[in-house]
Amino acid sequence: MHDPLLVPELKEMLHDGDEAAMREFCGVFHPGVVAENLAELPTADAWRVLSHTDLQRQVEVFEFMERERQMELVSTLPQPQLLSLIEEMSADDRADLLRSMEDDQLERLLPLIAQAERSEIRRLLSYPESSAGALMTTDYASLPEELSVRDALAALHHQAPDRETIYYIYVLDELRHLRGFVSLRKLILARPDLLVREIMDRDVLSVRVTEDQESVANKMARYDFIAMPVVDDQNRLVGIITHDDVLDVLREEATEDAHRMGAVGPLEDSYLATPFHTLAWKRGIWLVLLLVAGFGTSWLLNHYDAVTENHEWLVWFLPLVLASGGNSGSQSATLIIRAMSLGELNKQNQALILRREVATGVSLGLAMGLLALMFAVCYVAWPSALVVGGTIALVVTLGTTNGTLLPIVLRNLGFDPALMSNPLIASLSDALGVLTYYNVALYCLSLA
Amino acid sequence: MHDPLLVPELKEMLHDGDEAAMREFCGVFHPGVVAENLAELPTADAWRVLSHTDLQRQVEVFEFMERERQMELVSTLPQPQLLSLIEEMSADDRADLLRSMEDDQLERLLPLIAQAERSEIRRLLSYPESSAGALMTTDYASLPEELSVRDALAALHHQAPDRETIYYIYVLDELRHLRGFVSLRKLILARPDLLVREIMDRDVLSVRVTEDQESVANKMARYDFIAMPVVDDQNRLVGIITHDDVLDVLREEATEDAHRMGAVGPLEDSYLATPFHTLAWKRGIWLVLLLVAGFGTSWLLNHYDAVTENHEWLVWFLPLVLASGGNSGSQSATLIIRAMSLGELNKQNQALILRREVATGVSLGLAMGLLALMFAVCYVAWPSALVVGGTIALVVTLGTTNGTLLPIVLRNLGFDPALMSNPLIASLSDALGVLTYYNVALYCLSLA
Repeated sequence: MHDPLLVPELKEMLHDGDEAAMREFCGVFHPGVVAENLAELPTADAWRVLSHTDLQRQVEVFEFMERERQMELVSTLPQPQLLSLIEEMSADDRADLLRSMEDDQLERLLPLIAQAERSEIRRLLSYPESSAGALMTTDYASLPEELSVRDALAALHHQAPDRETIYYIYVLDELRHLRGFVSLRKLILARPDLLVREIMDRDVLSVRVTEDQESVANKMARYDFIAMPVVDDQNRLVGIITHDDVLDVLREEATEDAHRMGAVGPLEDSYLATPFHTLAWKRGIWLVLLLVAGFGTSWLLNHYDAVTENHEWLVWFLPLVLASGGNSGSQSATLIIRAMSLGELNKQNQALILRREVATGVSLGLAMGLLALMFAVCYVAWPSALVVGGTIALVVTLGTTNGTLLPIVLRNLGFDPALMSNPLIASLSDALGVLTYYNVALYCLSLA
Repeated sequence: MHDPLLVPELKEMLHDGDEAAMREFCGVFHPGVVAENLAELPTADAWRVLSHTDLQRQVEVFEFMERERQMELVSTLPQPQLLSLIEEMSADDRADLLRSMEDDQLERLLPLIAQAERSEIRRLLSYPESSAGALMTTDYASLPEELSVRDALAALHHQAPDRETIYYIYVLDELRHLRGFVSLRKLILARPDLLVREIMDRDVLSVRVTEDQESVANKMARYDFIAMPVVDDQNRLVGIITHDDVLDVLREEATEDAHRMGAVGPLEDSYLATPFHTLAWKRGIWLVLLLVAGFGTSWLLNHYDAVTENHEWLVWFLPLVLASGGNSGSQSATLIIRAMSLGELNKQNQALILRREVATGVSLGLAMGLLALMFAVCYVAWPSALVVGGTIALVVTLGTTNGTLLPIVLRNLGFDPALMSNPLIASLSDALGVLTYYNVALYCLSLA
């Protein structure tokens, strides 16, 4: 969302070497806006503009840049500038950046970073991707419980400049165990002579450092926190996760699920930033798999040649029968997978939900079967129309059941349930649909 | 996520009439946790527990209750209690609650609510659903620009108790025009004798009151705000939107998109809270539409009987051909619709993206066609295999193009692009696939 008026102005500043204007540009706008407008310039020019502001501002803007632009700067900036940028970054953004570097690049940089930051970086990098530990920052505000409110506010003055947030302050004992938390609002409203211990909330909701980021995001959405504390298995505070990181997680997870559901391997970058060949590969691999499944259906059909030959009308309704199974299966899978992502569906209620979906499948199956029967009699005679209606009833019921069962089975086996994409459900339904259709036909027509 | 140990304890408290314990329960835990545990009790019992705590706490817990439980309380609580609950609620949550009431219920309640709150409610209810106005709260903290930092902090002391957030404070002139904003962090770090005007940020990013909530959420996610100001068309501050509301919007919008993409009418409640018949209806209506489309394909196939009769092998590959078109179309539609939701795809770059997807379609089409040809020669003779390979190449290219084009067209016409669900794309591809397949066959076989 760059401003179409700002970019030409920036180019003019660069052309005129107007340092005061560049400094003002970096200082006046929100760092996100500065980053977006700089994205329209070549990397070297962007850095020239940014070099006229102070380090803190440079870091703020740098943190808002797209990963690709950040990596370009990492490989082109002179080492002293790069090191001070990295040392000044917030712990979580820095860990994310270093995580996307090549191993040899990382091993070259790390020894140059100050000792204190370095051990912090190594610790954050050690947490598995998509865990609370990989998402958190260690720049949190904390206080001991025996401080008075007056002294607590004074202590916060010192902590404020380099903490990610000072609006939630965590109360720790000398071994860093999480004893409680207090909001800045409560602190400034409290009588100055009270102790932190007397005003803090003792029921602190926290997440484990190994917890999955999706579950963290669901908890933060449920309880409306600005930040949530992350603890180790001895309830010691190791970091906090802030509201902005959770927004990013929710967007990423929803995108990943959507892509999987459409049979596209999840993209690491945005759609526009993903190179053509990566996109083609992430789609092609699924298309090939589905093609192989499709040839399986061909092989099945091949065995029913004699039936087809005698009842050519069977072919007319073949796409309809297969689509009906796939559609009802896609609906169930979509509902189930989304409910799982939102944390609504768990191991306790999965049996209940399976029963409910099967009941829905039977109801929908009967209704659709009846409707299909009514349509089919416009094309074919009575016993043939019954084959169509009966098959539709069966495939809708089966489709719904499979669309519910398969994601549940996938999750219980430890896979991402969203791998059960709509196209995959449709492919599996195709094979099942052919078997159902021809067997119903053989049975009914033998009776007729 | 109720605590399995707390619920029996609550039941015991109720049985013993232990008021002190009930008061403690309501006070000690996070209001969200209190609400979740009370959800396991009948409404009357839940209210009995809650009635032993103060009004402010009651409201906090009430705001965390599921809508269904809130509505039960609305219709069962004695009027005085209900009115004080509603008057004490935060403006945005209250508007949401009143929005879900029946018209006659609302008209009975409104005249009883204090005048000041009442006009506020009418104003918030007047904004269209899913707009920034419907999402915002009017409980924001604001300051005039000529105040000193010292006086500003004193003024905040008065505002703090009933404001949704005091961490971002908006600076207004006497006509409520938005002049700037200052964070509480900046305010407590600043020299007390400075003026608010001297330390405030003047480049305030704001949203219009009529702006769509999805676009608001994307902006908040991009700039990492705790809250974002909402202004009218004269840049006067009318409310703020806070981080927690945006989290809910992102979850809702992602769920709505996911459901639409799976051909399910979006649910208003969670999957588990949606009644059986609503769910069946929201699925059934789409299944019927897709069934009608399916009969359209039957009608087409019906016209190619003569070809089928002479070349029975055509039937074997029919499901494969149709699935390939649907799958590649679903992939494109998924990528495009998700990019639109994230705000990555706009009217400026849609032509570029269409070209890119068509190029992807041609590449994937050629690759899949070649692969299909190689598989098909295992089943049929050379010219027939060529029909299969050629058709697959064409339907994958066409599917990709349609999967890209149709959501773009839908959006340009003002509809939700996610209506172009995977099953709908598959259905349209079925009809197109039949036409392509038989025409390629007729052409190639006439040459052979």
